[in-house]
Amino acid sequence: MTSKATFYHAGCSVCTDVEAQFAGSLDPAKYDIEIVNIGEATERLEEAASAGVKSVPAIVIDGQPYHINFGASLDDLR
Amino acid sequence: MTSKATFYHAGCSVCTDVEAQFAGSLDPAKYDIEIVNIGEATERLEEAASAGVKSVPAIVIDGQPYHINFGASLDDLR
Repeated sequence: MTSKATFYHAGCSVCTDVEAQFAGSLDPAKYDIEIVNIGEATERLEEAASAGVKSVPAIVIDGQPYHINFGASLDDLR
Repeated sequence: MTSKATFYHAGCSVCTDVEAQFAGSLDPAKYDIEIVNIGEATERLEEAASAGVKSVPAIVIDGQPYHINFGASLDDLR
């Protein structure tokens, strides 16, 4: 059974680097990975914030937020 | 072929949570994962610093550092 992993980014260079390396590094046998650009899909900002995301890039795995490096604050994307 | 991924932590609760969730989430077909507690193995602090690690928990994949959340500054472990 796979768990849900959502990778939130905003298209910035920090995000793109992390996405390229990280989103592809998760075990596909364990995770169903969705990649969301919340710089564009701003309707999903609140969903990310509710999961505890403070900045991007971040990945939410099983409901827990993990901030990877720092690209942009969520507040700056609102 | 697998790449090298080194997960550096310092035994703090933030590190432990990230280790439990993250280190096990990487694709074992792609990565050979080593877990290093640099709170104990202080002789490896400089190796982590050289790879660009500023704080733990962090993971170095193919020589690139990724800081995941924030547990402790490397400077505080010296």
